[in-house]
Amino acid sequence: MTREFEPITRPASERMDAILGKPFPLLDHGFVRLIDYMGDETAIVQAARVSYGKGTETVSSDRALLRYLMRHRHTTPFEMCEIKLHVRLPIFVARQWVRHRTASINEYSARYSILSREFYVPHAEDIQKQSTTNKQGRAGAFSESEAMLVQAVIRDVCGYAYQAYEGLADKAGYNVARELARGVLPVNFYTEWYWKTDLHNLLHFLKLRMDPHAQKEIRVYADLIGGMVEGWVPNVWEAFDDYVLGAHTFSRSEMEIVRDIIARHGLTKENYARIGALSKREQSAFFAAVGVDMESANGNR
Amino acid sequence: MTREFEPITRPASERMDAILGKPFPLLDHGFVRLIDYMGDETAIVQAARVSYGKGTETVSSDRALLRYLMRHRHTTPFEMCEIKLHVRLPIFVARQWVRHRTASINEYSARYSILSREFYVPHAEDIQKQSTTNKQGRAGAFSESEAMLVQAVIRDVCGYAYQAYEGLADKAGYNVARELARGVLPVNFYTEWYWKTDLHNLLHFLKLRMDPHAQKEIRVYADLIGGMVEGWVPNVWEAFDDYVLGAHTFSRSEMEIVRDIIARHGLTKENYARIGALSKREQSAFFAAVGVDMESANGNR
Amino acid sequence: MTREFEPITRPASERMDAILGKPFPLLDHGFVRLIDYMGDETAIVQAARVSYGKGTETVSSDRALLRYLMRHRHTTPFEMCEIKLHVRLPIFVARQWVRHRTASINEYSARYSILSREFYVPHAEDIQKQSTTNKQGRAGAFSESEAMLVQAVIRDVCGYAYQAYEGLADKAGYNVARELARGVLPVNFYTEWYWKTDLHNLLHFLKLRMDPHAQKEIRVYADLIGGMVEGWVPNVWEAFDDYVLGAHTFSRSEMEIVRDIIARHGLTKENYARIGALSKREQSAFFAAVGVDMESANGNR
Amino acid sequence: MTREFEPITRPASERMDAILGKPFPLLDHGFVRLIDYMGDETAIVQAARVSYGKGTETVSSDRALLRYLMRHRHTTPFEMCEIKLHVRLPIFVARQWVRHRTASINEYSARYSILSREFYVPHAEDIQKQSTTNKQGRAGAFSESEAMLVQAVIRDVCGYAYQAYEGLADKAGYNVARELARGVLPVNFYTEWYWKTDLHNLLHFLKLRMDPHAQKEIRVYADLIGGMVEGWVPNVWEAFDDYVLGAHTFSRSEMEIVRDIIARHGLTKENYARIGALSKREQSAFFAAVGVDMESANGNR
Repeated sequence: MTREFEPITRPASERMDAILGKPFPLLDHGFVRLIDYMGDETAIVQAARVSYGKGTETVSSDRALLRYLMRHRHTTPFEMCEIKLHVRLPIFVARQWVRHRTASINEYSARYSILSREFYVPHAEDIQKQSTTNKQGRAGAFSESEAMLVQAVIRDVCGYAYQAYEGLADKAGYNVARELARGVLPVNFYTEWYWKTDLHNLLHFLKLRMDPHAQKEIRVYADLIGGMVEGWVPNVWEAFDDYVLGAHTFSRSEMEIVRDIIARHGLTKENYARIGALSKREQSAFFAAVGVDMESANGNR
Repeated sequence: MTREFEPITRPASERMDAILGKPFPLLDHGFVRLIDYMGDETAIVQAARVSYGKGTETVSSDRALLRYLMRHRHTTPFEMCEIKLHVRLPIFVARQWVRHRTASINEYSARYSILSREFYVPHAEDIQKQSTTNKQGRAGAFSESEAMLVQAVIRDVCGYAYQAYEGLADKAGYNVARELARGVLPVNFYTEWYWKTDLHNLLHFLKLRMDPHAQKEIRVYADLIGGMVEGWVPNVWEAFDDYVLGAHTFSRSEMEIVRDIIARHGLTKENYARIGALSKREQSAFFAAVGVDMESANGNR
Repeated sequence: MTREFEPITRPASERMDAILGKPFPLLDHGFVRLIDYMGDETAIVQAARVSYGKGTETVSSDRALLRYLMRHRHTTPFEMCEIKLHVRLPIFVARQWVRHRTASINEYSARYSILSREFYVPHAEDIQKQSTTNKQGRAGAFSESEAMLVQAVIRDVCGYAYQAYEGLADKAGYNVARELARGVLPVNFYTEWYWKTDLHNLLHFLKLRMDPHAQKEIRVYADLIGGMVEGWVPNVWEAFDDYVLGAHTFSRSEMEIVRDIIARHGLTKENYARIGALSKREQSAFFAAVGVDMESANGNR
Repeated sequence: MTREFEPITRPASERMDAILGKPFPLLDHGFVRLIDYMGDETAIVQAARVSYGKGTETVSSDRALLRYLMRHRHTTPFEMCEIKLHVRLPIFVARQWVRHRTASINEYSARYSILSREFYVPHAEDIQKQSTTNKQGRAGAFSESEAMLVQAVIRDVCGYAYQAYEGLADKAGYNVARELARGVLPVNFYTEWYWKTDLHNLLHFLKLRMDPHAQKEIRVYADLIGGMVEGWVPNVWEAFDDYVLGAHTFSRSEMEIVRDIIARHGLTKENYARIGALSKREQSAFFAAVGVDMESANGNR
């Protein structure tokens, strides 16, 4: 084995190094802190290129390759980056978050330690009515005084529960086992954990949790982490925004309608101009998708 | 706890029971056999309904619910069904297949047992040239005599290798350890395994491996298994075909173009007629996606 | 492909079929219901045998093979069985349970539906003091009247919280979005889910959750499910009990001590008699582990 | 949220930084190169401590905590470290390796690129006979001349196959699609990949693949990677060696025998001296395991 390799150093991201360890506050008592990360865009490109061997000279630039990978859902290279966060979050948010199974978690244990007196009380403007159209959503504002009443109820119940919790768990008092005493604490109480996942699974998490249908209280976490990712791997983020967040999927029936519309009308010069702004590969993919013959398309430009 | 439950029996599928254990031949020496399965469409619906509690009366039918789940990529209920297959396949196909990690596998061990003399020789029409447009594909036919020459080369190398393998592993001869002897066998040789996965992960497998970009030799397995799934959970399959296989995803830029096209032309009566054939929810999603105001849309019909 | 296969039917378990759908009550408002299962002991054996090909005639019986697999932690064949349960459990138990990531879950959604007024109040004898030796455990009884006081506190807080929840979520009243209103509910409230996992991962779950260090409230679930498994795959259960539950692992240093003890004393006839009751393979493994030469061991018998 | 945090920097390991990117040769054409890593022992400790909250002052040192975690199989904190390797390995080794599912892989694609003419030929001393006691092992040396004959056979078949492969895939010749041409290559040919996993899963991999029952050709990779891990997280490695590699698990029946032996003989002063060298916690665990009453044990010292 005489193959030679250039010396390497660990990939680092200035943008990430600059925020290491800093708590970014969220909701009333939550935060997200970047603890560590592994890899950057070159790490993704490098892993993708091992697949292609000597055959990748055609994908001219790293950015183009990253976009290609995202567009075609070639997800494994994105698993080559890793992120570790320290997160403080209400229990009900943690319960949604933990459903993302491909991640590593170490959570504060209320069997072992006393939870502190911090619980989530929504801002007045976040207190909304049960949506009538979306069974699992909120829609419809309260007046300020109504919202304050709701806040008061939440504060009252959580405060009352914490007082009971303290009484039960008090070493000098009942000294009930912590694992039992914590049972009275509402899911608005804060917990915290270290959470580690890879970039592919993180993007999937962000896709689902930045979605308008996600509960707002987890969405704010996703949005904030999304901002970190944008600073970390900007071309990946751009591609993610184009091909995932901003993308739309039409069903087979809907595609027939789209093709029908275009077949009935043809494409105007202005349409072609816009299409021409796509990359060559995307242009041909677009024409194929909407059922326009490329040759005649080129003739009509 | 006074809640009462109806007695239940295990869900069964006549279509699946009818093919249990039967080998469906594939390629020249491959097969797929259904060994077992768990659940059916009612199992998916049942699991989805536990999420919604008492609130699901609005989704009128099981079929509609299954379509809704598929359309919105609510994937967890599909994990509630399971399939187990006995598959005989060339090693190079097994190497692609095994990359689907959320599955259970027990494979024939060539450390332990002797592999039999069965290797894959492609049919003449499957022997094609290296594609010039798709670096990992084939395109361009050979003449029959050329294809036969290629087959002869494959048969020759594999036969030669097997002869050497037998000589090395022969108990009465060299008696080289099997784990070493098998090293000379080409990846066209067949292996076999039991493979078990859930319906969600199976559909993901099928999406990737029924795709025209998948290598033909794994595609034939995916197509065959797809046929089983269609018999097992026909409404799921229909939804999968509409919302995944036949679907198309436009990027953010492409969606702007689609909206631009429609904005410039408006929609004709014929367009509206086709749109009207979608479900109410899909209609409003479609109008929202293409940027047509529902109200005015309704006015124009 | 001329290989022939016997016709097969789906493996079924009478013991499991007999309990399908029946709720087994637990704690004060919990239950476990068997919804479905896949496979049985023959399914495990069958998958293991595909690995060994034609070479398994030496492992005489299915039971011996199952024990061998368990003893040597050959875990993949146990993944070939699957179980699906409907479970009703307090939220704090669900939070521990969900950490087992290789499983499929559909949980009741409190964003979507109203939680009913059921919360966990421990039996008087389960209310214990914080353990002084085990930071995450309980130890030390209360008097009956003390325990009743603790129960009263729990009942009071949970009842108070539920009243507030109802008030907030009341459609005719505040009609606060359910996803917000549920924030005041303590983790003693019950949730429910469908949970599906394979036998290997189930046994791992049971190992951790039947352990005396597991919180009692999850242990009762594990114990009950363990009983189901025993009825389903009795030889697996026996092997699991011998080689996992009842097993003990000594560290490298501890093993040196064990060997030292035995070297200093030699083995008596009575010792040999007990050792002789092990299987042949286990005997030789035992002698190797404790550093006794097999030959001389046999001489001394 | 007024909690304050110390500024942090990314954990780094001098030992790991020193070997970044350097190929460590293995077998005849293989190598392992460290590409990146995340975390170190403090990262594990840190994640473990978040679970314990303010309650960890009793576990005096990081080393003791790491040993405690390993001993009690508290595996999640070990998931907080990550390693990424570039590995060149024979296909048959890759086929064993890939069965470890909790890992990320990007492999060289023989659909896309031409494999180079490198195949594994075992060293003469590694060529051994089929073991008679271990159906999947090797045991029994060949004479040097016999071993050379076996090498010659392997070299001949692999060389013959490669010549055919080149002929088939030659752009100026047949130009058969690469995905088809590669079918004639034996599993002794080398492939390569980027492989990334976390420390917990890496240790599990090492446990299984450093085992004497693992095939020697994967064992050399495991041994080499084990050496890296030792340099990276030395206290973890020490604990892994004591509590996993050097540990031994006795079944329930075997433990009865161990207890019987000790009950019949009692413990000598020399025995107690050795036991006394264990940590306090381990001493009491040991006495409990072997059925010696701690009190009387202390009296007898």
